[in-house]
Amino acid sequence: ARTGLPEAVLCSAKSPAQLAEILAAARARSARLLLTRLEPAGFAALDAQARSGLDYDAASRTAVLGGPVPLAAASVAVVAAGTSDLPVAREAAQTLAFSGEASLLVADVGVAGLWRLMARIEEIRRFRVVIAVAGMEGALFSVLGGLVSAPVIAVPCSVGYGVAEGGRAALASALASCAPGVVAVNIDNGYGAACAALKMLGAAATGREEP
Amino acid sequence: ARTGLPEAVLCSAKSPAQLAEILAAARARSARLLLTRLEPAGFAALDAQARSGLDYDAASRTAVLGGPVPLAAASVAVVAAGTSDLPVAREAAQTLAFSGEASLLVADVGVAGLWRLMARIEEIRRFRVVIAVAGMEGALFSVLGGLVSAPVIAVPCSVGYGVAEGGRAALASALASCAPGVVAVNIDNGYGAACAALKMLGAAATGREEP
Amino acid sequence: ARTGLPEAVLCSAKSPAQLAEILAAARARSARLLLTRLEPAGFAALDAQARSGLDYDAASRTAVLGGPVPLAAASVAVVAAGTSDLPVAREAAQTLAFSGEASLLVADVGVAGLWRLMARIEEIRRFRVVIAVAGMEGALFSVLGGLVSAPVIAVPCSVGYGVAEGGRAALASALASCAPGVVAVNIDNGYGAACAALKMLGAAATGREEP
Amino acid sequence: ARTGLPEAVLCSAKSPAQLAEILAAARARSARLLLTRLEPAGFAALDAQARSGLDYDAASRTAVLGGPVPLAAASVAVVAAGTSDLPVAREAAQTLAFSGEASLLVADVGVAGLWRLMARIEEIRRFRVVIAVAGMEGALFSVLGGLVSAPVIAVPCSVGYGVAEGGRAALASALASCAPGVVAVNIDNGYGAACAALKMLGAAATGREEP
Amino acid sequence: ARTGLPEAVLCSAKSPAQLAEILAAARARSARLLLTRLEPAGFAALDAQARSGLDYDAASRTAVLGGPVPLAAASVAVVAAGTSDLPVAREAAQTLAFSGEASLLVADVGVAGLWRLMARIEEIRRFRVVIAVAGMEGALFSVLGGLVSAPVIAVPCSVGYGVAEGGRAALASALASCAPGVVAVNIDNGYGAACAALKMLGAAATGREEP
Amino acid sequence: ARTGLPEAVLCSAKSPAQLAEILAAARARSARLLLTRLEPAGFAALDAQARSGLDYDAASRTAVLGGPVPLAAASVAVVAAGTSDLPVAREAAQTLAFSGEASLLVADVGVAGLWRLMARIEEIRRFRVVIAVAGMEGALFSVLGGLVSAPVIAVPCSVGYGVAEGGRAALASALASCAPGVVAVNIDNGYGAACAALKMLGAAATGREEP
Amino acid sequence: ARTGLPEAVLCSAKSPAQLAEILAAARARSARLLLTRLEPAGFAALDAQARSGLDYDAASRTAVLGGPVPLAAASVAVVAAGTSDLPVAREAAQTLAFSGEASLLVADVGVAGLWRLMARIEEIRRFRVVIAVAGMEGALFSVLGGLVSAPVIAVPCSVGYGVAEGGRAALASALASCAPGVVAVNIDNGYGAACAALKMLGAAATGREEP
Amino acid sequence: ARTGLPEAVLCSAKSPAQLAEILAAARARSARLLLTRLEPAGFAALDAQARSGLDYDAASRTAVLGGPVPLAAASVAVVAAGTSDLPVAREAAQTLAFSGEASLLVADVGVAGLWRLMARIEEIRRFRVVIAVAGMEGALFSVLGGLVSAPVIAVPCSVGYGVAEGGRAALASALASCAPGVVAVNIDNGYGAACAALKMLGAAATGREEP
Ligand SMILES: Nc1ncnc2c1ncn2[C@@H]1O[C@H](COP(=O)(O)O)[C@@H](O)[C@H]1O
Ligand SMILES: Nc1ncnc2c1ncn2[C@@H]1O[C@H](COP(=O)(O)O)[C@@H](O)[C@H]1O
Ligand SMILES: Nc1ncnc2c1ncn2[C@@H]1O[C@H](COP(=O)(O)O)[C@@H](O)[C@H]1O
Ligand SMILES: Nc1ncnc2c1ncn2[C@@H]1O[C@H](COP(=O)(O)O)[C@@H](O)[C@H]1O
Ligand SMILES: [Mg+2]
Ligand SMILES: [Mg+2]
Ligand SMILES: [Mg+2]
Ligand SMILES: [Mg+2]
Ligand SMILES: [Mg+2]
Ligand SMILES: [Mg+2]
Ligand SMILES: [Mg+2]
Ligand SMILES: [Mg+2]
Repeated sequence: ARTGLPEAVLCSAKSPAQLAEILAAARARSARLLLTRLEPAGFAALDAQARSGLDYDAASRTAVLGGPVPLAAASVAVVAAGTSDLPVAREAAQTLAFSGEASLLVADVGVAGLWRLMARIEEIRRFRVVIAVAGMEGALFSVLGGLVSAPVIAVPCSVGYGVAEGGRAALASALASCAPGVVAVNIDNGYGAACAALKMLGAAATGREEP
Repeated sequence: ARTGLPEAVLCSAKSPAQLAEILAAARARSARLLLTRLEPAGFAALDAQARSGLDYDAASRTAVLGGPVPLAAASVAVVAAGTSDLPVAREAAQTLAFSGEASLLVADVGVAGLWRLMARIEEIRRFRVVIAVAGMEGALFSVLGGLVSAPVIAVPCSVGYGVAEGGRAALASALASCAPGVVAVNIDNGYGAACAALKMLGAAATGREEP
Repeated sequence: ARTGLPEAVLCSAKSPAQLAEILAAARARSARLLLTRLEPAGFAALDAQARSGLDYDAASRTAVLGGPVPLAAASVAVVAAGTSDLPVAREAAQTLAFSGEASLLVADVGVAGLWRLMARIEEIRRFRVVIAVAGMEGALFSVLGGLVSAPVIAVPCSVGYGVAEGGRAALASALASCAPGVVAVNIDNGYGAACAALKMLGAAATGREEP
Repeated sequence: ARTGLPEAVLCSAKSPAQLAEILAAARARSARLLLTRLEPAGFAALDAQARSGLDYDAASRTAVLGGPVPLAAASVAVVAAGTSDLPVAREAAQTLAFSGEASLLVADVGVAGLWRLMARIEEIRRFRVVIAVAGMEGALFSVLGGLVSAPVIAVPCSVGYGVAEGGRAALASALASCAPGVVAVNIDNGYGAACAALKMLGAAATGREEP
Repeated sequence: ARTGLPEAVLCSAKSPAQLAEILAAARARSARLLLTRLEPAGFAALDAQARSGLDYDAASRTAVLGGPVPLAAASVAVVAAGTSDLPVAREAAQTLAFSGEASLLVADVGVAGLWRLMARIEEIRRFRVVIAVAGMEGALFSVLGGLVSAPVIAVPCSVGYGVAEGGRAALASALASCAPGVVAVNIDNGYGAACAALKMLGAAATGREEP
Repeated sequence: ARTGLPEAVLCSAKSPAQLAEILAAARARSARLLLTRLEPAGFAALDAQARSGLDYDAASRTAVLGGPVPLAAASVAVVAAGTSDLPVAREAAQTLAFSGEASLLVADVGVAGLWRLMARIEEIRRFRVVIAVAGMEGALFSVLGGLVSAPVIAVPCSVGYGVAEGGRAALASALASCAPGVVAVNIDNGYGAACAALKMLGAAATGREEP
Repeated sequence: ARTGLPEAVLCSAKSPAQLAEILAAARARSARLLLTRLEPAGFAALDAQARSGLDYDAASRTAVLGGPVPLAAASVAVVAAGTSDLPVAREAAQTLAFSGEASLLVADVGVAGLWRLMARIEEIRRFRVVIAVAGMEGALFSVLGGLVSAPVIAVPCSVGYGVAEGGRAALASALASCAPGVVAVNIDNGYGAACAALKMLGAAATGREEP
Repeated sequence: ARTGLPEAVLCSAKSPAQLAEILAAARARSARLLLTRLEPAGFAALDAQARSGLDYDAASRTAVLGGPVPLAAASVAVVAAGTSDLPVAREAAQTLAFSGEASLLVADVGVAGLWRLMARIEEIRRFRVVIAVAGMEGALFSVLGGLVSAPVIAVPCSVGYGVAEGGRAALASALASCAPGVVAVNIDNGYGAACAALKMLGAAATGREEP
């Protein structure tokens, strides 16, 4: 896109034939490409031709065409409340890596066991952007938002049942957070959070200019 | 009621005439009575006869007929996230006091400033029941639930705007809390939380018997 | 957790490999472990190593590692409105048993046949805590709340269709109950209700102290 | 209307001038007329001409043009859970009376105090149609539905706060009732419930014919 | 039940073993039994013993144990808007038949083709109770309610997509109907509508007595 | 706007000073201007200067600057279900007139009294576009959509209570209509419906060309 | 239907036997027929008899009985935001073609890449009616509505996740559009949008007459 | 707070006495203070003592205690779709100014008149962070997000009616935006958007370090 963000293909609603065509076109113009929401079954349905040169990562349900790029030192911390939040956290990390940004994954620090988060908070504070991934009631967003100076991008997760089903409770917590400066993306949108982080780092890179 | 809980009158939808009648009937049978959700304007609308012997507390919007009873040492902590949550917190405290239970009010310990809560957590841990009152995103419920062994009764507050309007975000957080053992009452229901606390203390008082 | 509650693993979103790893770790530190929301298919997917020493109970979809503990005389009644509510009721009972608390299961006492509930109400009244499980419109919560002095923990069930789909109608009934002292947990959360009951019994056990 | 039901005017969204015009037209054709949702302020805003011959009943917010008709022995019981439900219960009673049907009002029999309802249940059972009016969680509908053979018409009330706000919890209870044969009308629609009762009595009056 | 309504078993959440047990118990006490929401696959899962004496009707997803009873002349019209509404309409008809009430099924008279409904309206008008079944926007309820003197029981159907998904649009239409005297049951609840019709016919049968 | 539609000012959220400024600017460039949602109090708050040359119509809450234009023969019928729907219906008519299109207003033809609608249907059929305005359950949209060949633009109205509050039930009916070819605009958006009608007439005026 | 629109069969809730019957009846009266929402599996389930003379188009999930008709020059542009919106866009195009109207499909012009839309806007402006199909946030509707003079019929798509799930966000955007003259149909209703377009073209064809 | 963000007081739910106390305390410790959501009536209710040294800005409903600070060259653009969005846009600008950050306000560039936005897009592109404020359908967020490289913070506004009431449609658009990198804050939360922008600028200021 014209905003400098990585070109990504959302695979959830595309057929193997459509994906094969998109991949072929990218190869033809020697473009790198990030595929998101590609379930193992979807990857398995691609033929050898379509898969050639495609690095698939099942844990994040992403694939990369065109190989990795060298990574800068990590500027982003991706903090996940529980193990069920890991696929979304990893989608964010893969999107960052696709654009050359390393990240640190801090997992299993949900606020019901606050001491686990506190044990790692100084480490988290060293990063320039924090992506927080949480389902259920999403209390992690507010706790983090009050403890770090970096921007906190909340990614509510569709993990949960009852009133938390589909991620709506976590989303409401992200938006209603009493910790100022927390921003939110759509439920399960690890890709979008990473794109926002890239934009924030870009803003930083530019330095302060006369507009 | 037949459950041993205090007799209370919800005043919000009653006319001055109806309240006067209820108060007269209570006086006639020498009953003590707790009135809740009695706004200052509603109290002002009562005539002298109706007000006689009625102790009105504007901060909690409650009134008591029949005078105070001696209080036992406090077994309940009422913990409020912000100053806007105080009317609901005080409704809980007044209901407890009406039944002879003192309580400690711990205010302004919302999780966006986690150090304020941590400074008082040892004190809170000494109580047998904790009532937590919070609006906005209600992250306080999960943090408390993970830090104290006592039952935590969450009272979501209708304080907030946007997705938090009317207390729905805080309610969802209370129910979806990843801290086990948190229970919830309806939005703004300080009275109900106190009644539940009284039942819990009663369960305790009974000791463990053969059913 | 640091609150004295049983350590439990929510299995619904975990792979067999993840569960095997968690079980192995628990065995390594000789820890007892409660697994919840483990469907028969999920249990069947575990290999022999992972299953060794694991007691699976299909009716409650729970499994226990580390064997049973001796049970105290029952302090908790688990009351279910209909047969469809039984899996959730049994999850509560298993969680209590894991922590050494027996319970009495009273089933099929929905209020549409009020005489069935009335026939057992004196028996229910002897318990120190009551867990009520109901789907559809959840009228059971209010009726029980008005008849027993013990705390009533309402567990709305996702049993129902139309406006009751997913348990939302029963949840609203639990929260809006006109019987004071009813508290609610999330839909289908039998585990959470049992944890709250354990906390309440603990509050009782402590006796009344100077805070 | 062509269905034999009473002609009614919903006043909530009509100006004094519009009401005056409607009343004049009815007088001109010597028609009787029922006005509903006419608040005291709205009645006060009518001029003497418009008010002439109009019987206003503030408790039900209704007015009748054309005087009362003789009443048959009561066939309908109107059962209200609490005092806040009375305006809606009375709108139903007034609508029935306008059409010549007496009714018995049974008030303050909410299920949180089940013994109050049981004390009157035999009396209620003698009626051919039961209109039940309840707000909050609306548990009354299911309890009544399981105890009487007559059709039960549930009128959910907009009395309540939090999840019960606007009557939605009571409406869900009415529709999801596990007591078969309960039917529902819109929130606060006492007029509609009475119209349905009139239709049911009419069905009865007709006797069983060959279609 | 004690209200004279047919004993029914909601099969959707019951296992073959549970159904077999219920059927055996009914046979043991020579009881007739109506089974609802029994999908073809669920019926096929029953063994020969359980199926013996069971009449299964796939179109309504119901089964009857204990054989048919003689039918009175039809007093109820079941009017369905479209062909997708037929399973629900037939559940109502089967429930009526189980209790000895015949009914006339009038199908495919949705209001988008108003002339089809008008062609049959005189016929419909001859019945003492009308059950109307419609999905999508449920306009049929209001049109019928304004044209017949009999009580109209609206059964919203879960047929529809987008804003009509799950039957919510049709339910709102039933409740908000500007035709007075329309009553509603839960979405897809043909059984409940028939039970209400039976209660209405019973009210009629009793005649008008002094209460 | 560049689409040929009338320039309109939504006054609901603007101060008298802002409106005065907008009107002055329009006069300065000799522009005609349509003001919508201007309540009587808002009009009264304008000073003489601001009001000069402004034609205010309280029934539609609109005002016109720059005087009327000659009207073509009416091509649009505006059909309103009830008297409460008239302000919205009139906003549509005023918007059409501002652009030189006359319209016929057909009022009080809600489907609960179907014969009133049928008495006028031939007349309505003569128009090239039909705007239908209805609140409550909005059944009018489907009935009209099935009876006329012209495009039907549904305007749901915020008239109603309970499930119809704010116009949501009528909106769902408009969108879920089983009569094909019905289109909807936002609740109470008479202005938008008229703009759409103008675009449709324009499409017609253009004739069929080679694209 | 009597409105001149094509006769269509919504296949989603019909069995192969029902479809076979409907097709046979149409053949018997030599009627042309459009089938919508016929998934490949549903088509495959039809027997040879039922399929004879049926043209199936998998991309739009439609089938036509009775062969194509000659097409007029295209008057309608169907504009789709993304590739996931194509099945719905094609359903609209097939419905138009069934009635003899050609259309131009303009795909992949979502507003996140505004330059792609701008590159084709002059072409789109030449059509008399525009059907816009978009999921996610549906921003395309407002942008198009502000740029073309033709009526814009918005078809929100059920493509999306989180807050966009089921098409609700796109639907809200269509209805709340700040571009006047945008009208909406139900989510995924390409058939309905085409019917509306046909009605609009018909209005045009009629010319302006004296009503 | 410990995150370096400005100390702010949300005034909407505080009494004049509470505000006076907070202001006195701030003066005592010579603290600067930002007050938000202080309506003109609320400011007028403060006594002279409380007002002393307080700069009130009615357009943004904010007040500042402790005087202005020197402003750096503007790094943030605040872009508002319509004039009704200005109070929220100005709250953001005031919060930035309180912390020493100037901003440029770009108003009246809603996408229904896309040419107005395009005329200013190059100017907007020069800023390091963009805050976008829009109500109704919020299409501005996606269009901007696709056109600028800077992070776009979407602030949905509670301006709108019908489906847009309370800002929910705009919020959904912000979250579901198909333009990657758009982040959202709660409805009307200009303060929060500015805090997030300050955090982003801070991230930039820090430069890229080894974590
Ligand atoms: N996981 C994801 N979540 C949200 N948006 C995505 C994701 N992956 C890709 N996208 C966006 O969707 C667009 C791809 O849509 P498409 O053209 O249908 O492949 C990309 O340009 C991204 O903006
Ligand atoms: N309280 C009420 N609730 C619901 N509908 C009512 C009520 N009162 C009157 N109606 C109905 O509204 C119609 C009157 O509407 P209108 O013509 O606007 O006065 C009557 O014919 C009744 O069908
Ligand atoms: N199709 C149905 N829809 C609604 N309620 C039903 C239906 N069939 C049976 N019931 C009700 O559900 C009860 C059976 O519940 P259960 O004891 O779980 O079999 C019966 O007593 C009926 O009141
Ligand atoms: N306009 C606002 N919107 C959202 N949050 C705010 C706003 N103004 C202040 N706050 C937050 O609310 C807190 C103040 O809450 P309180 O202690 O009740 O004054 C501040 O620390 C901010 O985090
Ligand atoms: Mg979490
Ligand atoms: Mg709070
Ligand atoms: Mg139940
Ligand atoms: Mg009640
Ligand atoms: Mg239908
Ligand atoms: Mg209407
Ligand atoms: Mg789209
Ligand atoms: Mg806007």
